Amino acid sequence: MPRTLSIVQIGRGQVGSRLVAQVDAARAAVIEEWGVDLRQAMVAGRDDGPDPGAILERAARTTPPPRLFVDATAAEGMAPVHRQALLAGFHVVTCNKKPLAGPLADYDAIQSAARTAGRFYLFEVTVGAGLPVIATLRDLRDTGDRVATIEGCFSGTLNFLCTALDADQPFSEALRAARDRGFTEPDPRDDLDGQDVARKAIILARAAGLPVEAADVRREPFVPVDRGEEREGFLRRAGDHDFALRERVRAAASRGLRLRYVARVAPGEGCRAGLTEVPDDSPLGRLAGPENVFVFTTGRYHHHPLVVSGPGAGPEVTAAGAFADLMTVVRAVARGGNGAPEA
Amino acid sequence: MPRTLSIVQIGRGQVGSRLVAQVDAARAAVIEEWGVDLRQAMVAGRDDGPDPGAILERAARTTPPPRLFVDATAAEGMAPVHRQALLAGFHVVTCNKKPLAGPLADYDAIQSAARTAGRFYLFEVTVGAGLPVIATLRDLRDTGDRVATIEGCFSGTLNFLCTALDADQPFSEALRAARDRGFTEPDPRDDLDGQDVARKAIILARAAGLPVEAADVRREPFVPVDRGEEREGFLRRAGDHDFALRERVRAAASRGLRLRYVARVAPGEGCRAGLTEVPDDSPLGRLAGPENVFVFTTGRYHHHPLVVSGPGAGPEVTAAGAFADLMTVVRAVARGGNGAPEA
Repeated sequence: MPRTLSIVQIGRGQVGSRLVAQVDAARAAVIEEWGVDLRQAMVAGRDDGPDPGAILERAARTTPPPRLFVDATAAEGMAPVHRQALLAGFHVVTCNKKPLAGPLADYDAIQSAARTAGRFYLFEVTVGAGLPVIATLRDLRDTGDRVATIEGCFSGTLNFLCTALDADQPFSEALRAARDRGFTEPDPRDDLDGQDVARKAIILARAAGLPVEAADVRREPFVPVDRGEEREGFLRRAGDHDFALRERVRAAASRGLRLRYVARVAPGEGCRAGLTEVPDDSPLGRLAGPENVFVFTTGRYHHHPLVVSGPGAGPEVTAAGAFADLMTVVRAVARGGNGAPEA
Repeated sequence: MPRTLSIVQIGRGQVGSRLVAQVDAARAAVIEEWGVDLRQAMVAGRDDGPDPGAILERAARTTPPPRLFVDATAAEGMAPVHRQALLAGFHVVTCNKKPLAGPLADYDAIQSAARTAGRFYLFEVTVGAGLPVIATLRDLRDTGDRVATIEGCFSGTLNFLCTALDADQPFSEALRAARDRGFTEPDPRDDLDGQDVARKAIILARAAGLPVEAADVRREPFVPVDRGEEREGFLRRAGDHDFALRERVRAAASRGLRLRYVARVAPGEGCRAGLTEVPDDSPLGRLAGPENVFVFTTGRYHHHPLVVSGPGAGPEVTAAGAFADLMTVVRAVARGGNGAPEA
């Protein structure tokens, strides 16, 4: 008889729907290998059901433990929901960055609830999608290594733009190409203002043990962004930035450097994100197209850093990253821990 | 009151002794964060104590569960010991590649014992030392991704030689430099024959679900190695290979290619390891010095692969990788599973 893991998921957009499909496709194999049945008890859209708190209360009454809550939304205001889920005995897997990148007090309350309840709180996909970033950082920290810096390109969108600029494409054309290929948010200012990268830097910093607030991140937008104007107006005037960016890229190139949208997390220095000149043969300089790279320099990895790179966005790899987190819970449940009923 | 995890370790060479020191340094922090006391109950040298089977039996009588067995040796003949440990209820963390890269029947018996006993069998450090390689592969597989190829440079020693050849250094000089910097085995033929890389390829292939035997690996040595002659004679005649290797490197360079000692694991093709021409701007071609790189191309990571790189050898990072595996057991024990006494 397999054990059942009851899954309650909020969010069925691009990532959420693919996660449902991936879990469904693997269900028989997971029963076979781990003796755990992944039962997708409830899957609610963010905006078409009862509020998340009510969903959790209902799930706690109507599904057997162990239970797992998946936040596959990008919604605001979910930090108290994550905390509520943990305290009610749910494991939590989140694709949603916002509860982790908001006020530090929210972050600490969530982590403390996870510890108190003895439940997993997993958020690998919030940084680098399916790439092994958070787990790598956790292992470095758990084993007593000392993080000196975490540097990288955390936005596939912005790196796509940087690579196009390297090839002497005007910024406005590169932005159009990125939109055409589905790499940008509907309003590209959501990428260009650097907010998304700043959130990832905050999450990494906190996971590295640094008590940072959003205000501690020095963030330079990719180009100046005026939120007051209409989106179409902003896009029409994107060409205004072509000349200045081209000059900056060419000046860098003449010195063997490239412009990259680099984020940097370093104890003692805080976090920063912005266009930065890097050597063209460095891991950041070599990065091409919509990829991410994460460069960990630590006490143990100092002459040569530990580097993880690859596609850091996209619904399929993001869903797979959440599924990998979910499997961490499965392996634990299979071994009789983590809220599994006694065997 | 913390739970105790009783650790029984065989091997106190360079890796083993650093692992003892790292665990010791982190002990208080692990109690604080996880409520688990890492008690190093026995640490035996490979050759100065009773045989491993007797050590396990004694530990099973004299230490409280949950128990963890660490193999920090490079000894032959340990497969039955790993199996015995699992069936006796020990979790197992191994730095020793040999039990995993020997006959497939041994590998299967170990995995089956781990499943039957419901215990962890962790071997992250056998490939790429502390780099997240095995865990990444496990996550790809667990989430229903399809591995197309795993390619890379799995030997820091051989990559150091390749990079030196790129810089037009003669092979014999590069080999001397590698020895001077402690990058080679005492007898460098143990690196040059490709056996160590082949073992890693076998471990990756098996972890990807491919039932390979050592005979299925097509392995080309870095240079021809005659095991019949004395080590000093081999080293004296290393210069015999200078001309041929230099010609090969120059011919490749004229076509924008570099020589790398590349291993490749691909379902349907088996495994191979040998000197291979790769584009100079590929992840393998760009690799410099004593680094490793692992390039995963899968159903989901196909346009751009998932890449992990960094130092893949050295006692400090190898010990840290084993410690990270150990922490996987700690997190499970903290949550009441994995052989923890009932809370």
